[in-house]
Amino acid sequence: MNVVDAIRLKRAVRKFQDKSLPDDVVHAILNAGRRSQSSKNTQAWRFIAVRDKKILKALSQCGEWAGHIAGAALCVAILTPEPAEKFQTMFDAGQAAAFMQLAAWELGVGSCPASLYEFDKAREILGFPAEWHLRIALSFGYALDEEKISAPPKKGGRMELNEVIHFDKW
Amino acid sequence: MNVVDAIRLKRAVRKFQDKSLPDDVVHAILNAGRRSQSSKNTQAWRFIAVRDKKILKALSQCGEWAGHIAGAALCVAILTPEPAEKFQTMFDAGQAAAFMQLAAWELGVGSCPASLYEFDKAREILGFPAEWHLRIALSFGYALDEEKISAPPKKGGRMELNEVIHFDKW
Repeated sequence: MNVVDAIRLKRAVRKFQDKSLPDDVVHAILNAGRRSQSSKNTQAWRFIAVRDKKILKALSQCGEWAGHIAGAALCVAILTPEPAEKFQTMFDAGQAAAFMQLAAWELGVGSCPASLYEFDKAREILGFPAEWHLRIALSFGYALDEEKISAPPKKGGRMELNEVIHFDKW
Repeated sequence: MNVVDAIRLKRAVRKFQDKSLPDDVVHAILNAGRRSQSSKNTQAWRFIAVRDKKILKALSQCGEWAGHIAGAALCVAILTPEPAEKFQTMFDAGQAAAFMQLAAWELGVGSCPASLYEFDKAREILGFPAEWHLRIALSFGYALDEEKISAPPKKGGRMELNEVIHFDKW
C-alpha cells in the first residue's frame, strides 16, 4: 500500500476481533514509532506495548472514551516528559503515533488513539517513573468490521480543503 | 512507495533546490494534512501554505533553528488553538505534520519541521486572528543533496528498540 492510499483510506477502528497480532506485526508497529522524527532528535518518548488482557482492561478505565482499549490486541502507551513544558513534546508524540498507525494500517491492522485523564491510576497500572507522563495511548487490532479496512472514505468526514487552507497569508 | 519504506527511509531535509513544487504535489501534501485524524474529529487546525519568497524569508527569522524555511519551496504553517489548553492540540498537529511529510516523501519531496518562538512576529507576517496560534511550521522542497532521498538510514540515528520499548509494564 502506498502512503497516499494509506492516508486516504485510514479510519479510526475501535472494535476489534478477539485475535492476537503476530509478533512481527507488533514489532513493525513499534519500530515505526521508534523511527519517527523528533525535535532535535531528542526521541523524548518511551512506548509500553501492552497485550495482557487485565492491563488492557485497567487502562481502558483511565479515560472517558478509552473503553476501546479493553478489546484491543495491543495498546501502545506513549510516555513523554511533562507535556506542558514544551510544545514540541505532544507534537512529537503525535508524529510517532501517526507513524505507528499508518504502518499498522498497511499491515491490515486498525487503530485508534485514546486520551487518558486518570494520570495517577495509569501510572500505577503501568509502573513508570515520575519523570515520564502518559496522556495518550493507541489501541491496535484487527477490525471487527473487516469491511472498514478497504471501504472508501466516508463523505463529510473532513472539512473541505478550502476551509482548512490559506495561501501565503490568512 | 509503501508506508514502511517511507518511514524507514525518511530523513530530515533542510537544504533545498531552488525549484518550485508542482501544484498537484502541493495539493497532495496539503490534502494529506487535511485527511489526518484528530481528537473527536475536531480538525482543530488551519494550514497556511506559503510559497512567496519574501514571506518564507520573514518566517525563517521567527525561530533560532528555522533558517531552512528561507530556502524551502513551500512552508506549511500549522495553526492551532492555544497549545497549552489541551494536550491533544499539539498531538493532533504532530499527526497532521507526519501525514504531510510522509506523503511528501513518497512524492520525492523532502521536509523538516521548525519551531517558531517569535509568536507575535509570525502572527504579523501571516495575518492570522487571535484565536489561532503558530508554534511549528514545515519546510518542503526537493533536496539539494538528491542522494538523501534514496540513501539507507544512517546507523545510530535512533535509539535501539529495547531502549525505547517496555512490554506490558515499565
